[in-house]
Amino acid sequence: MAITTNEALHEVKQHLTDVRYTHTLGVRDTALALAKQYGADESKAELAAILHDICKYHDVQTMQDIVRNKLHEPHWGEYGNELLHAPCGAYFAEHQLGVKDKDILLAIRFHTTGRAGMGLLEKVLFVADYIEPNRRFPGVEQARKLAEESLDAACCFALRQTMFLLLDRKQLIHPETVSAYNAFYKQKGAMEFE
Amino acid sequence: MAITTNEALHEVKQHLTDVRYTHTLGVRDTALALAKQYGADESKAELAAILHDICKYHDVQTMQDIVRNKLHEPHWGEYGNELLHAPCGAYFAEHQLGVKDKDILLAIRFHTTGRAGMGLLEKVLFVADYIEPNRRFPGVEQARKLAEESLDAACCFALRQTMFLLLDRKQLIHPETVSAYNAFYKQKGAMEFE
Repeated sequence: MAITTNEALHEVKQHLTDVRYTHTLGVRDTALALAKQYGADESKAELAAILHDICKYHDVQTMQDIVRNKLHEPHWGEYGNELLHAPCGAYFAEHQLGVKDKDILLAIRFHTTGRAGMGLLEKVLFVADYIEPNRRFPGVEQARKLAEESLDAACCFALRQTMFLLLDRKQLIHPETVSAYNAFYKQKGAMEFE
Repeated sequence: MAITTNEALHEVKQHLTDVRYTHTLGVRDTALALAKQYGADESKAELAAILHDICKYHDVQTMQDIVRNKLHEPHWGEYGNELLHAPCGAYFAEHQLGVKDKDILLAIRFHTTGRAGMGLLEKVLFVADYIEPNRRFPGVEQARKLAEESLDAACCFALRQTMFLLLDRKQLIHPETVSAYNAFYKQKGAMEFE
């Protein structure tokens, strides 16, 4: 790794509120447990989890500039500013912290939206972010139970609940989230999950 | 028009069940009323409404063949067979009945999914199909009330409710439906609707 977990923790602590840092530690612990359970690379899961929210409080204009002019993917900025920290976090991890591992970068990049064809590490971070012990929302207990039995089922649940919430709030839905949801159900059929 | 409304009614009657034909007449009446209210071409609205479900009971394999090998848009077949009759209806109207009007063909083609940037006639048919008098489902009265005040609001409501239903049933969601929903809210903002 280009950066140790301790260096990464030190780095993210400077960018996050105390509450968000506590959340990050919860995601780290949960990602490690899920990685162990489902056979993902534990050191990659740990580093991805530590770094996933590093850009959570970055300046919106700076992040809009990154997705437009560095990543050339302006769509990230078209579905609400809440999504920007994910691709920008991956960009920051790669270009500021020297993280080159593609699995880690993908996991950070899609930890908010999901995507069609998510890899194992992406699923681990996506679910860990949803169910870590500090999370409090209706359905989180069900998600935790599902994650004990099937990582895919927990992913699907989180994707569905996210879309329910966005529809309920009349907020935009990133196309990748729908693609991720569709991909799970195309692959396995609705009866396999939940 | 290449085909009169009477000829179109005679044609679709042969392809539909009595219940579906009654629905079609309801869509026609509602589409005419909405066209009048919102300034759409009434004769186009009438013909689009009469023809919109003409392929509802066509053979699924034949429709899969049309979307793959005639339209070269296999995605229509990847989100559930229920969607096939819409693009195939437009294809049938154009190639079997000689309908050349692009507005009518688009309205038939996207009457089930919606699409980003729907035109006036598309919105009229989409909403008419949702609220015609024979429809009975929770929310239809709210949709009817919305349609009295704003065609866009009624469209949005139908798109949201459709996605809620699909998520609830763990069914696939066609990307065009999400794009249509996003497009409305990108354009006007959530506060303008409902």
